[in-house]
Amino acid sequence: MSEDIRAGEIATALPETFDAGLYFIGRIRTPWTRRDECPKNARGSDATCTIALDPRYAAALDGVATCTHIVVLYFMDQARRDLLVQAPRHGERRGTFALRSPVRPNPIAMSVARLVGVDGTRLTVVGLDCLDGTPLIDIKPYFASVDAVPDAVVGHARKKS
Amino acid sequence: MSEDIRAGEIATALPETFDAGLYFIGRIRTPWTRRDECPKNARGSDATCTIALDPRYAAALDGVATCTHIVVLYFMDQARRDLLVQAPRHGERRGTFALRSPVRPNPIAMSVARLVGVDGTRLTVVGLDCLDGTPLIDIKPYFASVDAVPDAVVGHARKKS
Repeated sequence: MSEDIRAGEIATALPETFDAGLYFIGRIRTPWTRRDECPKNARGSDATCTIALDPRYAAALDGVATCTHIVVLYFMDQARRDLLVQAPRHGERRGTFALRSPVRPNPIAMSVARLVGVDGTRLTVVGLDCLDGTPLIDIKPYFASVDAVPDAVVGHARKKS
Repeated sequence: MSEDIRAGEIATALPETFDAGLYFIGRIRTPWTRRDECPKNARGSDATCTIALDPRYAAALDGVATCTHIVVLYFMDQARRDLLVQAPRHGERRGTFALRSPVRPNPIAMSVARLVGVDGTRLTVVGLDCLDGTPLIDIKPYFASVDAVPDAVVGHARKKS
């Protein structure tokens, strides 16, 4: 919540209470300890990261090692949640749901990571872009049959190039 | 929480408190009102579904209509959260993190949906598989450059065929 709102940004009053609760089920270990060090997106770095799952959930990893790629959900706990329209430093004003910014009503990031290995409750992956210590929310198998849409287009991003 | 545990399934004691909170930001309208009616996965039906966003967040949709596909996160609020190993009715025992089952410590589902249209705060999409009334958590633009991995493999699922 440290940032101020920028010109052109729109904030909302969030509801007074939450509707459901999340457990942090582990932590993500990355080389990045400041936001300006993080890659711009998950394919922006080949750095190896580690997912350290809480040992309480160890049995739930059975079968994960057979996946080449996993969907990782994590909680961007340092992001403000009230911005509806954002003005990125380099880019046009956009609605929050048209952006992958961590700033959103529910600051849950989704990344597709390549699974390098599983050692007990530690997963070695490539393809994450978050701060060291980011709370883990979920791990899912990535199914190309339902998750891969190679010809998908984000029109507003394409116009920029 | 209506189901009993099946033979071979493993449950855990969940933490006593949540670590973070979620806002339900809308509801998903689908043709399915009972779990046994839902398609087996998100490509299992061509049915048109509607995402009804809470009007509070309307401004956050600016730019979304330029996307051919969106990532939809939703909360499977009828799923139990304590199973680490699951025994699907038709299939082998697997760890929760190797399955896309709604049953998981944080029952957040992720689907890639084709965006048919945006009308105010109502998004028409194809590619969801959830119950009518499911709470919406997030909408994100789907970027093929980072989200599409057409050659990804889930080894344990491939062995079955």
